[in-house]
Order: sequence, then C-alpha cells, then structure tokens
Amino acid sequence: MAIIVQKYGGKSLATPQLMKDVVKRILKNRKPDDQLVIVVSAMGNTTDNLISKSQQITDHPNPREMDVLLSIGEIESTAMMAMAFEAEGVPAISFNGPQAGITTDTRFTQSKLLRINPRRVQEELNIGKVVVVAGFQGVSPNGDITTLGRGGSDLTAVALAAALKAEVCEKYTDEIGVFTANPKLVKDARKINVISYDEMIEMTSLGAKVLQSRSVIFAKKNNVNIRVRSSIIDDEGTLITKEAKEMEKATVAYIIPSKNEAKITISGVPDKPGIAAKVFSALAENEVSVDMIIQNVSEQGKTDITFTVEQNRVKDALKVANGLKTDIGARNVKGDDKIGKISVVGLGMRSAPGVASTMFEALSKKGINIEMISTSEIRISCIIREDKLDEAVQILHDRFQLGTKKMG
Amino acid sequence: MAIIVQKYGGKSLATPQLMKDVVKRILKNRKPDDQLVIVVSAMGNTTDNLISKSQQITDHPNPREMDVLLSIGEIESTAMMAMAFEAEGVPAISFNGPQAGITTDTRFTQSKLLRINPRRVQEELNIGKVVVVAGFQGVSPNGDITTLGRGGSDLTAVALAAALKAEVCEKYTDEIGVFTANPKLVKDARKINVISYDEMIEMTSLGAKVLQSRSVIFAKKNNVNIRVRSSIIDDEGTLITKEAKEMEKATVAYIIPSKNEAKITISGVPDKPGIAAKVFSALAENEVSVDMIIQNVSEQGKTDITFTVEQNRVKDALKVANGLKTDIGARNVKGDDKIGKISVVGLGMRSAPGVASTMFEALSKKGINIEMISTSEIRISCIIREDKLDEAVQILHDRFQLGTKKMG
Repeated sequence: MAIIVQKYGGKSLATPQLMKDVVKRILKNRKPDDQLVIVVSAMGNTTDNLISKSQQITDHPNPREMDVLLSIGEIESTAMMAMAFEAEGVPAISFNGPQAGITTDTRFTQSKLLRINPRRVQEELNIGKVVVVAGFQGVSPNGDITTLGRGGSDLTAVALAAALKAEVCEKYTDEIGVFTANPKLVKDARKINVISYDEMIEMTSLGAKVLQSRSVIFAKKNNVNIRVRSSIIDDEGTLITKEAKEMEKATVAYIIPSKNEAKITISGVPDKPGIAAKVFSALAENEVSVDMIIQNVSEQGKTDITFTVEQNRVKDALKVANGLKTDIGARNVKGDDKIGKISVVGLGMRSAPGVASTMFEALSKKGINIEMISTSEIRISCIIREDKLDEAVQILHDRFQLGTKKMG
Repeated sequence: MAIIVQKYGGKSLATPQLMKDVVKRILKNRKPDDQLVIVVSAMGNTTDNLISKSQQITDHPNPREMDVLLSIGEIESTAMMAMAFEAEGVPAISFNGPQAGITTDTRFTQSKLLRINPRRVQEELNIGKVVVVAGFQGVSPNGDITTLGRGGSDLTAVALAAALKAEVCEKYTDEIGVFTANPKLVKDARKINVISYDEMIEMTSLGAKVLQSRSVIFAKKNNVNIRVRSSIIDDEGTLITKEAKEMEKATVAYIIPSKNEAKITISGVPDKPGIAAKVFSALAENEVSVDMIIQNVSEQGKTDITFTVEQNRVKDALKVANGLKTDIGARNVKGDDKIGKISVVGLGMRSAPGVASTMFEALSKKGINIEMISTSEIRISCIIREDKLDEAVQILHDRFQLGTKKMG
C-alpha cells in the first residue's frame, strides 16, 4: 500500500465538467494499491470573486472574517470532487482543514502550521476511501478558521504527505515539470527529471511559479518527495527530492530570467559609517525587501548606494529613499525599472570554479552589459537591461549546453 | 442586559449592499443593553446555485457531501455580515454551526438537533461583540457537517434563543407578521399582535410559510418567544408565545386557504376489515403523507375510500393506489387535483360550540359545496372546489367578523 497525495489547482477544477475529467484521469492512472489523498484549491476564479464581494462591504475586512470567507472556496471543491469520485463508483469523503487535523497559529490570512494530525484522513484511507482535503486552510487552537496565505494549498499537500508518510506528493499543474529554461523563450529547453530541494528553493526565490519556496523548504525538512506533473499530458514530470550523487554532473542546470526587478541608486552620499544601515533599516521598517546591494566610491569622500527591489515596490522604496535624502546628505535619488535579472542555477557550481567568468564572458561577447552581480553557493545572478533578458536566456542556455547535455 | 436573537433570510441578504442596509437597520433599532445574535441564511439564490452545480456532477450526490456543499452558503453570509458590522465600527464575529456548538444526529440533509452548547457565542457576547451565526447547519458527534433540512435556519435561531435564554427570537421576513387572512385576498385582513404556539402550529401545518412547524414546536417546548417582523417596515410584528387568558376572546382568529391539495378516491372496494390498513401502509411506505381520510358505504357491501395528499404527491399516490387495485378488489381509482382546503383556526373554538355549523352554513349559503371535513381542537378545515377558495376566504373572514373585532 502506498499513500499518494495529489494536489490540483483551481484552473484544472474550474467547472464541474473539468472536475469530472480530472477524476476520470486520476482513476485511470491509479495503481491498485494506491491510497489517494486529493488536495484541492478553490474552483477557477472563486477566490477572486469572494475577495471582490468582501470589497463591496469594506476596504478593510477583518482578517479573521476574510479567512472564513475565503475558506469556503476550497470546501466547495472538496464536496464537488468527492461527489465526482462517487459518481464513478469510487467511495470518497471530503474534509475541510479542521477535519483534516491541520492546526495553525492565529495569524489570520498568513497562518503558519503548528501541527498536523490527519487521524480521520488515515482512518478513511484504511477503509478504502479516496480522501479529498481542502487546501489552504486550517484551524487555530481556539477553533477559528485560518488560511495559510500564498501557496497555501501546496503547503497543505506537502504537510499531509509528511504526516501520512506518503510515497510522494504530486503537484498537478498546467506545466509538464521544471525545464532548463522557459520553453517559450528557448527552443531546445529540456524538461529535468530530478531536481534537488536546494536548486528548487533557489529557483522559487528567482520567481519560478511552479511552487512556493515555503512548500519546498517544508518538503526538504521533512524529506517529502514532490513530483510536479501536468494535469493534462501524461508525463512523469519533475521529481523534487534530496540531493543525490548523480545530480552533481551538471554544473549549470537552469537559466532563469526575472523581469520583476527595479533598482534604486542613492548617489553622492558621504562615505561614513552608519549611512547604509540607516537606509536599509528604513526600508525594512516599510516592509520593502531588498535583493541585491552594491556600494562603490564615486568621487572624493562620496559613495553611491544601489539596491534592487521587486518592481511593484519601487514607489515605496523611492519614497523611503527620498525621505532620507536630507538626513543622510545624499545628492540624488534615482529609480530604474528597466532592468532584469538573469540567473544560472546548478548544484555542480559548488565544485566547478569558473562558472561566473564563463557567464560574464558569454554575455559581454554579445554586447550585454552587466550592471550588478550576486551569487549564492549554487546560483549566479546578473542585473542587465530588461530588453536584453530574452536574448540572454538563449545565450546562456547555449553556452552551458543545456539543450544537449544529459542530466537529472 | 437582554440577549436578542435575530434571524434574516436569504432574500434580505441577497447582495452586499442589502447586507449593509440590514446591518444599519439592526444598529439603529438596537437598545443600548441588547446583546445581539444574528442568525443568517445563504445570500439570495446561493443554495439553488450550489444545488445546480452539484447536479452537473451527479444526479445522486452523496448526502454527506451535499451537506458540506450547502453549508458554505450560510458561512459566506456570516463572514460578510460580520465584516459589515465591523465596517460600522461595531465589533462582530462569525461562527459556523460547529463553532456555535450545534450538535445534530447524522441524518445528512435532514438532521435533528441533539444538543446546543453555545459557549463561544456567550463568551463573545460577554465581551461586547455582535455574534453572527450560520443557520441551517450543525456538526455530528463524529465531526461531520450536517444540515437541518427545510426551515433549518429558523430552527437554529430558536434553538440558540433557548440555549442562551434570550428574551426573544425575532424572525425578519418580507411580511409584517401574521394576519387574520392573506391581505392579498381579503382587504380588511388585520395583522395579529399575539398568537399562541398551538394556533401557529395549526397554521404552519396548513401551509402558512412564515415559519416551519418544527421551529414553533421547538419554541413551545422550550418556551421561546418568537416575533415575526418585517425586515423593511418598522412594526412590532406578531409575537408567538404561550397561551394567555386574553387570547381566548377570539373564537375564530385566522382564515387560511390552501391550494396545494389533491384527493384520490378508490371506489367499489369490498367493505371488509384490513382494506384501509393496506392502502395507508402502502402510502406510508412510499412516503406519501395523507391528510384527510373519509370512507363511506356506496352500495351493497362496497365502500369508497377518499383521501387527500399534497398536490405534488398525487402521481405517487395514484401509482400506489393503482398498484393495489387488483389486490383489494377495487372498481376504480380516481385522482382530482382541482380541490382546495379552507380552514378556520382559533383558540376560542375549544370553548365555543357552533363554529363548525356557522362555517358550513356561511359557505353553503353562497353555494359552495363542502366535499370533506376535518377538525382539530382549534381548527376546522373543509375541502371545496379550488376555484371557490378565494371567495370562501372572504366569506368566512366577513362571517366571523375578523376585520373589525379587536383581538390579540
């Protein structure tokens, strides 16, 4: 007997007919011994519709009530899906977050998991039922409904897989898996069969949308195998799992561009201690996350501070920087949202020196200027002009031979 | 401090704007010491829409899953209403059936109340919050979501009022209260200020839609005052309460017509023991409720059995009767759905003889033929032709002087 947790997003469950199709597909692919737990999101645009309904009442809904309201979307999906299984003659039962034993703290709209006790889920699996669980929601120790925030349904699936000691947590999506680069940008991009947790965490932080980093971090901590698969096309997808020796072969495995970047330059600041601290603590107080930072001396006793933020936070960042201008004695504050970030990721970079220089050379050869650089143990990112981003993906994919190398 | 339970139907909560209007109205009429519990139904057509969604999955949904699905309608209302109170600066909190402590048996889609333990409701009232509770739903001892069937939200309100020892349970509706007769049929129909539980129970069983009989029976058993009021017009409405001396004044207080009637006649049946038992146990097995029954000898050794059923059950009743025809040796089975029932109700009938003869005489004087008669301690009902029903209401309203008498 193997417990398989499968997670389906709202797009693949948008209508009753699509739900019936998904159920037929699940049953077609089910192995005789599989015990199935199906974690579901809200149907199609349900969540957006509920949010817009709440906005007709108030611009500042009570977060507790917002969680009550949003939780019904996933509950609807569970009931409909359980009915769809039973319509195919397969016994099934739906559980909401509280029934599935998902206990969280009380930070409404962005709760953290406290503990999982899927006793009833296990009982129903034991008597042969398919168990359909509402993603995204839990219950506080006090009995209040909570939600887990962005990517919450994925987290529900991974956490249940951990608690049930499932063989695998399969995330079904409209993509076939994880690729060496975006197939829309790079013709010979290849699907990866296996990727390590650490690589996947780097990729999610670079904007890969297939999973949220918190789910991958949770999976790593609890040793849950995640498989990203297509809900339409039959394919093994990509397995996200713990690092294995054979993965090391690839120095660079993935090329990822990100357009969601902007940079702020504070120039002509006196080069004395405490200035940078002032700037970045003010940004933190205003909940602006800073990604890269560089500081270089521009003229006698003066320095420029440049940092990048998410594009949609550039206004807030500029406001903070301009607010400090007089205080820190800066000459000028400038924003630039025409930048992009190109990153290469790969476990093998740890042991293979020279990846950075290969990357910089490949870009400069084609006349692409590098404005900022940041690195981690298994990643190198460069800020370039946004309009060069697509070209850069192809250049690096070719340079690191990702289209032909055998990997994963 | 007085706890007031108020119940609002789906029509008055159909849109976010209507909800905001209802909340403003509640707050305008609230006395400083009132502790408010607001029981809500699903918004507008939500329940119908959910049913139609389930039908796109299957014609025979699992009742447990149907309850899960339907329960979300009322939960949506609670969250939206709590937000609407908070938007007016009034602290509020929503509870679903399980959170409100409403425990039921496991007869999904038509559960019976087992016990009410509104501990959390009381706690939140104590700290000054308005508590919004989802009507219609509860939780089984095993933690499954259940629903209470038709009129379930009213029952939630009455049951909470009983458990919280509320001063009154106010049911808000689009009618102003209970009338001596339908004001659309009878111009001088008058609103009644006070009505006894027993009278109201008779009236609900005669098809008065303002409340379901189970709620009134529960209220009677637990001594809960119910006030039926308009959600739009300021009026004290009608108080449904235990019998008081001053109510006795009115012999007949209400005239109620019902079109939802049909009669079946099984004729030429041998007049021997056991025939009627056979007929009515077969009907009961097929869940056809029988209202009136008459049996009279028509010719030598033969008898006719006539009974009435709800109009929408006439097909089933005919099927049952025809199925028995040979077995019981009947000559003929005939259905007739062109009948109506006219009833007079009043506590005073107990002590005032002659009401029946006055009623029969008034009808016959105007040429209206009485086909069947049934009575209770405080009610007399006659079956007449359906097309005479409206006329009969007016005749009896006049005859018993309900338009002028001071009552209630």
